[in-house]
Amino acid sequence: MAGMTSRSAAKLIRPLVRVLHAYVPGEQPKIKGLVKLNTNENPHPPSPHVLAAVRAAVDGRLRLYPNPTAQALREKLAKLHRCQPENILVGNGSDELLALATRCFVEPISLEGRATRVPKKNQPGTRVARPSEAVQYFTPSYSLYPVLADSHGAAKNAVPLKPDFSLPSVAELRRGGQWDFRAALTFVTTPNAPSGRGHSTAELGALCHAQKGVTILDEAYVDFAAEHALPLAFKHPHVLVSRTFSKAYSLCFQRVGYFVGHPALIVALDKIRDSYNVNGLGQIAALATLDDLPYYRRNFQRIIATRAWLGRELAALGFEVLPSQTNFILARPPKFPAATWLEKLRVRKILVRWFKQAEVRDYLRITIGTEAEAAALVWAARKILSAR
Amino acid sequence: MAGMTSRSAAKLIRPLVRVLHAYVPGEQPKIKGLVKLNTNENPHPPSPHVLAAVRAAVDGRLRLYPNPTAQALREKLAKLHRCQPENILVGNGSDELLALATRCFVEPISLEGRATRVPKKNQPGTRVARPSEAVQYFTPSYSLYPVLADSHGAAKNAVPLKPDFSLPSVAELRRGGQWDFRAALTFVTTPNAPSGRGHSTAELGALCHAQKGVTILDEAYVDFAAEHALPLAFKHPHVLVSRTFSKAYSLCFQRVGYFVGHPALIVALDKIRDSYNVNGLGQIAALATLDDLPYYRRNFQRIIATRAWLGRELAALGFEVLPSQTNFILARPPKFPAATWLEKLRVRKILVRWFKQAEVRDYLRITIGTEAEAAALVWAARKILSAR
Repeated sequence: MAGMTSRSAAKLIRPLVRVLHAYVPGEQPKIKGLVKLNTNENPHPPSPHVLAAVRAAVDGRLRLYPNPTAQALREKLAKLHRCQPENILVGNGSDELLALATRCFVEPISLEGRATRVPKKNQPGTRVARPSEAVQYFTPSYSLYPVLADSHGAAKNAVPLKPDFSLPSVAELRRGGQWDFRAALTFVTTPNAPSGRGHSTAELGALCHAQKGVTILDEAYVDFAAEHALPLAFKHPHVLVSRTFSKAYSLCFQRVGYFVGHPALIVALDKIRDSYNVNGLGQIAALATLDDLPYYRRNFQRIIATRAWLGRELAALGFEVLPSQTNFILARPPKFPAATWLEKLRVRKILVRWFKQAEVRDYLRITIGTEAEAAALVWAARKILSAR
Repeated sequence: MAGMTSRSAAKLIRPLVRVLHAYVPGEQPKIKGLVKLNTNENPHPPSPHVLAAVRAAVDGRLRLYPNPTAQALREKLAKLHRCQPENILVGNGSDELLALATRCFVEPISLEGRATRVPKKNQPGTRVARPSEAVQYFTPSYSLYPVLADSHGAAKNAVPLKPDFSLPSVAELRRGGQWDFRAALTFVTTPNAPSGRGHSTAELGALCHAQKGVTILDEAYVDFAAEHALPLAFKHPHVLVSRTFSKAYSLCFQRVGYFVGHPALIVALDKIRDSYNVNGLGQIAALATLDDLPYYRRNFQRIIATRAWLGRELAALGFEVLPSQTNFILARPPKFPAATWLEKLRVRKILVRWFKQAEVRDYLRITIGTEAEAAALVWAARKILSAR
């Protein structure tokens, strides 16, 4: 292969891509016997009905293109959520939809444009986009949002949650002066990740009511929570709710997520997606999942029960465990720094997640596994604490 | 749901999305007994080995995320093409990769920027992007390219192929004055679609040598051609070859395509893709496909033989059949306009494709089906011609 210096390659690649720090997904190692509690997968398999439906579809039809709009799935989801198929857009996982939304609703800041921005009053000298151009989100929340903004060349507005990871009220946001009620796109992870904290539909409703731009309620973990905010997507034309089959419905491998919202937003997003964005077996798996919801609801109850047990056990060992409405918990470990715990657990073949961001660097994020996996974690934690 | 006027929705959506005409995929109707020759799918099923491998993978692992970089598949493809995994990027079909390339290599024209462009000498008064910002392609070719440019807000430079759909030489392109040798991104469909015409590696090599920006040789149909241009991706650091498992390898349903090229370009593209862009069963299907290439090669020979037979039969009925190196033929039908033929064939449950663009509106694009499907088409054409 002909050589290419990094300098000549650089000329071919857009400056914003050259400087981009890509999103870093949790590890997916293939180590035998590993207790994998790092990427919030459901520890239980898909229902036998789903596995049978997918297996039955593996035949000559793989040669054909899948339905380009996932129409049958949209219809079934519409029935479930008591809306129309026109309110639903299916994606290659919800990550694809979050990226599409960024490109659909937010004008990038051009290189020429950057120089001409009027600075905000309270941040003299900084280059700030017009309100309509910002991608806005709370910190900490899903670490993909800033990557999506950077990939698109959009301005970012990251605003801290309260110290206990709860949502600031609209009044608090107004007083704080940093929140942009006119941001083109606002992402709210609800329940929050990585903290696990739930947000009430009442608080979310007040926030949505105050926002002028598109607001995405990213409900990736909502099936493990006390409340969901879907009514807000039907009440407010600028609100989209994001859901996924990955975590709650044990289909990470298959890549199926969806948006619920106003048809005008759905049509716009639909225009810029890849024609055949959702693979056919993924569509079939998701359809079969919706035929067997009681299986999954039992499964959610089991995970919620394990979450309660794990929280109590870790608290008894000296962990500070935050309240969780998700299939993971955020916990501040005793005795050693969290990063040291990550390594000590890994040595014992238990993989959890640690984030280096300031707000959460003292914590471990631990996926709720099976009862046996949770017990293995508690056992390992006890060993680590008693080792000398 | 609260009402939203088209005016208030419009404020939420980027102007370029509002005016965008989305790509229109070929129909995927579910009509029983339909002879479907409209979207270039392979008429033969995946190999039994592939079906068995996918079926065997449908178990509890669906709950887990797939390998985020499709690493095993990259390694196997690298072995096949005698390069390194670092030369390979796997996508959710090659469409995803073509879209990623547009966003990775082409600077969009900002709204502010549009007004400040210096017009090209030979097009006074028109707003033309700097050469480095153009998405360039020949017409006719894959009709997705202009949609990708428009979705991204990039300038387009569409340059006609020669009247017989062959590639203009570099000298001819220079004389023509319209071709931009400094375009940030150039797409070449090779063999061409929708004409089916093949381009020699020698001609493609001369073009690649002359281009300064990233050049994508889109080889979606190359397995049905006499030559492929993969060596050019290893010779020129700015050349990417695009391949897909969809058509030749009977895996449209599964969404797997890939780029081959210089690691510096691959790394840049990798940064902006979704973390888990390729579904797990798709990865497994593609891996198993590479274990059974002789099955597919026999299948290509069969399609090529049917292509020759179909071409002769249609020519005998008065069709002007263009030479094809793909799994479809472009043919100008006798007696009725092509759009009328589309309808007359549809009445007989045979679906082919017709494009309204000026260069090809007199033609039908007909996928090479099985021997029986090709015979059904010839039989129907004969009936249509003899009807009074």
